[in-house]
Amino acid sequence: MPNNLILKSALSAALFMTMPVLALSQEMTVAPAPNGITIPKDYKTWQPLGVSHRSDKDSLRIILANPIAMKAATAGKTNPWPDGSMFAKLAWKDSTHPNFAAATVPGELSHVEFMLRDSKKFANTNGWGYARWLGMEQKPYGNGADFAQECSSCHLQAKETGYVFTHKAPLP
Amino acid sequence: MPNNLILKSALSAALFMTMPVLALSQEMTVAPAPNGITIPKDYKTWQPLGVSHRSDKDSLRIILANPIAMKAATAGKTNPWPDGSMFAKLAWKDSTHPNFAAATVPGELSHVEFMLRDSKKFANTNGWGYARWLGMEQKPYGNGADFAQECSSCHLQAKETGYVFTHKAPLP
Repeated sequence: MPNNLILKSALSAALFMTMPVLALSQEMTVAPAPNGITIPKDYKTWQPLGVSHRSDKDSLRIILANPIAMKAATAGKTNPWPDGSMFAKLAWKDSTHPNFAAATVPGELSHVEFMLRDSKKFANTNGWGYARWLGMEQKPYGNGADFAQECSSCHLQAKETGYVFTHKAPLP
Repeated sequence: MPNNLILKSALSAALFMTMPVLALSQEMTVAPAPNGITIPKDYKTWQPLGVSHRSDKDSLRIILANPIAMKAATAGKTNPWPDGSMFAKLAWKDSTHPNFAAATVPGELSHVEFMLRDSKKFANTNGWGYARWLGMEQKPYGNGADFAQECSSCHLQAKETGYVFTHKAPLP
């Protein structure tokens, strides 16, 4: 077998081995947020950082972290969070499980929202880019490019934890 | 460069490319459940299928599904679930967010539990193997190899959905 064939075979093997990860990326035709942020294509492969229930919104949430953010959270190096950190928050309206009355479970999808860390690009919102898409139709939230000031001002409450509300849920 | 060196380099590249996935597997020395089930090493890479809050247990949960189970859930082919389907449920005691009183968030880890589909191996519990580990110390739950009859009998309530309580949370 000539050298270049061996190399091609081995590289094909390498690509094949990484296919399951790449295949998880989804093709979406969703409009960008008013500030130009688009939905990170691979966010469904991110690991859960936490979960929450908002009694003021009657809403259940899962918070996913990309590998950079998960590594920082695990190491406790989160103030500031490293550039490239990303979070997805998936929020559903409360519903009651049809066979288990004590369980509140996801009903209608309320929104999917993201925080993207880039200390330079998003300097005017404390280094975080914010974006949100509403419902299953994924309608971009906000009017005008500066809509994320609303997100950023609320996240000031979490300044001590790098403007991120979610703490890593304990797990061995 | 001799053939074997090229091959070694290419295979090293292949291994390097898959390292992020492999690195997510955790090294654990956790005792098996009384029925011999061990914690699936890669469960933290599984995708969230849903989330729940149990008012009778004051507990928040994330339910993860392995790729076989997620594919079946997405296709709606879940009664029966295909052999090889696996779920992880991570359950925490309720806590209140220190900076956001309306948010209930994970407190102490209550337990991590699993359902593994093998219609032959687990025929006497309707085709599902059950196992649970308690707290951060991951103490196996149950006494005797037939402890999972308790799990199985409760899951009879979810017979119509293949003995699985969790419905896939809506997400585009």
